[in-house]
Amino acid sequence: MRIKQQTATDLPSSEDVRLANHKIKPFIVKTPVISSPQLNKELDAEVFFKCENFQRTGSFKLRGVLNALYSLSKDELNYGVAAHSSGNHGIALAFAAQQLNIPCYVVVPKNAPSSKREKIARSAANVIVCEPDLRSREEALKKVCDRTGAREIHSSNHPDIISGAGSAGLELLEAVPDLDALIAPVGGGGLLSGCALVASMFPGDIEVLGAEPKGAADAYQSFQAGKIIRTEANTLADGLRSALGDYTFPVIQNYVRQILLVSDWEILNAMRRIKDVLGFVVEPSAAIGLAAVSANSLHFQGKRTGVILSGGNVDLDFFQGFRN
Amino acid sequence: MRIKQQTATDLPSSEDVRLANHKIKPFIVKTPVISSPQLNKELDAEVFFKCENFQRTGSFKLRGVLNALYSLSKDELNYGVAAHSSGNHGIALAFAAQQLNIPCYVVVPKNAPSSKREKIARSAANVIVCEPDLRSREEALKKVCDRTGAREIHSSNHPDIISGAGSAGLELLEAVPDLDALIAPVGGGGLLSGCALVASMFPGDIEVLGAEPKGAADAYQSFQAGKIIRTEANTLADGLRSALGDYTFPVIQNYVRQILLVSDWEILNAMRRIKDVLGFVVEPSAAIGLAAVSANSLHFQGKRTGVILSGGNVDLDFFQGFRN
Repeated sequence: MRIKQQTATDLPSSEDVRLANHKIKPFIVKTPVISSPQLNKELDAEVFFKCENFQRTGSFKLRGVLNALYSLSKDELNYGVAAHSSGNHGIALAFAAQQLNIPCYVVVPKNAPSSKREKIARSAANVIVCEPDLRSREEALKKVCDRTGAREIHSSNHPDIISGAGSAGLELLEAVPDLDALIAPVGGGGLLSGCALVASMFPGDIEVLGAEPKGAADAYQSFQAGKIIRTEANTLADGLRSALGDYTFPVIQNYVRQILLVSDWEILNAMRRIKDVLGFVVEPSAAIGLAAVSANSLHFQGKRTGVILSGGNVDLDFFQGFRN
Repeated sequence: MRIKQQTATDLPSSEDVRLANHKIKPFIVKTPVISSPQLNKELDAEVFFKCENFQRTGSFKLRGVLNALYSLSKDELNYGVAAHSSGNHGIALAFAAQQLNIPCYVVVPKNAPSSKREKIARSAANVIVCEPDLRSREEALKKVCDRTGAREIHSSNHPDIISGAGSAGLELLEAVPDLDALIAPVGGGGLLSGCALVASMFPGDIEVLGAEPKGAADAYQSFQAGKIIRTEANTLADGLRSALGDYTFPVIQNYVRQILLVSDWEILNAMRRIKDVLGFVVEPSAAIGLAAVSANSLHFQGKRTGVILSGGNVDLDFFQGFRN
């Protein structure tokens, strides 16, 4: 597949994140930032968790979606909105569309977690099921947009989505401004690039890091190669299977220090640890930040690190082995 | 009503709390201890929350119940166990009895929160509904014990219950040993006296404080008067309507620095604050600890304070006004 390698010209700025935050504030939860003394003791570090698992729709995705829908005209909105999504983005889009009473079309790959598929199905959105590969997802989406006139709302690679997602990082930094490091999961890169933008406007040299599954290391490889590289995605972190785009990649290249790779096994351990020390279950894609800290404990020793728990929409299967 | 004023002779010790902790450990959750940087900044203090709302059955009560059932012989257990309880103690007792497959009788006052009544009713326990006053509760309990031979398991005033409850304080102190202060809600006084016992064996002079609703200030009045005083109970903190007994009172008198009185309005504000900064809803009786800190902010300024969030069993009505 050919990939557009040029950089988009209208890249978002840290100011866009501030504006997005201002616009969406009335409609989102200012999610908690919490820390665990036990965990801090174990890691000899201070970790601050931004709990987007408590966000409406169960993930940070609503932030970008609301910000994107805000910039559409009433006429554009009336045709509806569409996206392909394995879960959280689709849930957020369906929720926002329902609030606005506009049509919504979500292309869902067969292998999406059933709890997420069901959340979308329970909304008023039209669900189109397709094969899991990216080409099938994009083709199905194009078809529905052509047929209905719906506007595509990309799950990550768009300035409004990036700016909206970054508002989670902004709230974290407002709560704990003197961070040494800030870790966000990276799939399509919307959250990571938004957080990187906003961290750049805070004083001190905040090290922004992406955490990515070893089984879906396209961001890591793109970062190393200096150009967008697509890879197979084979990880249980279902929210991190998507790839960087021409908006998210250049922002990450410019503002992110490093991408940390984490195994699925480390992710599972971090999910368990979060359940034990914080009391709630997050999805694998969210636990990856703590997994990255644990796997690089020397690097984070003595530092103050913010970790974005990106979402909590997880299949019940994952609770097996978590029972108390 | 005549009240026994003498001190029980077999008062529990801090060592009993250690033993209880050891015995019940395999069957309880070592609940999280968390803190909120935003809240700490606002209060200019460090507050560490022990989240017993995440305990099995939704409150710390299971700790004392398991410890008490452990000290009964198999023959005694076979007759079953009984208690009067407006909620959490009954839920815990019913759960434990179901695990042990023994009969259980719970006398529930009419005015108990419906969610708690329903939790007890959903278990295998026999529920006896009675008038809300203490005399009716005690009479109904005596009747069922006489009829069935079931053993009364008091909700607070018993050495095993106190020692078991204290294990929550022990876990908190193991996680954050260098506390300046430790706050527990006080109703019957089992949790507060258990926590006070265990704090006394930690180095440093940890100030142990009870938090009590103004509308059910019997512990405060007893503490001031130096003898057990019973008062009317008129508070939305349904778990804190019961009164001190001849085991809990002397322990509190010897080991607790002060009882802090808090209004129902302050409790409601603390519930909202906990929802905002920690992301979850606790019951009014649990929010009272933070309410006591907020109402005495100067005293806690610059200090490290442990607060026991005693439970999370709350009626859905309370969620009104909490919607995000």
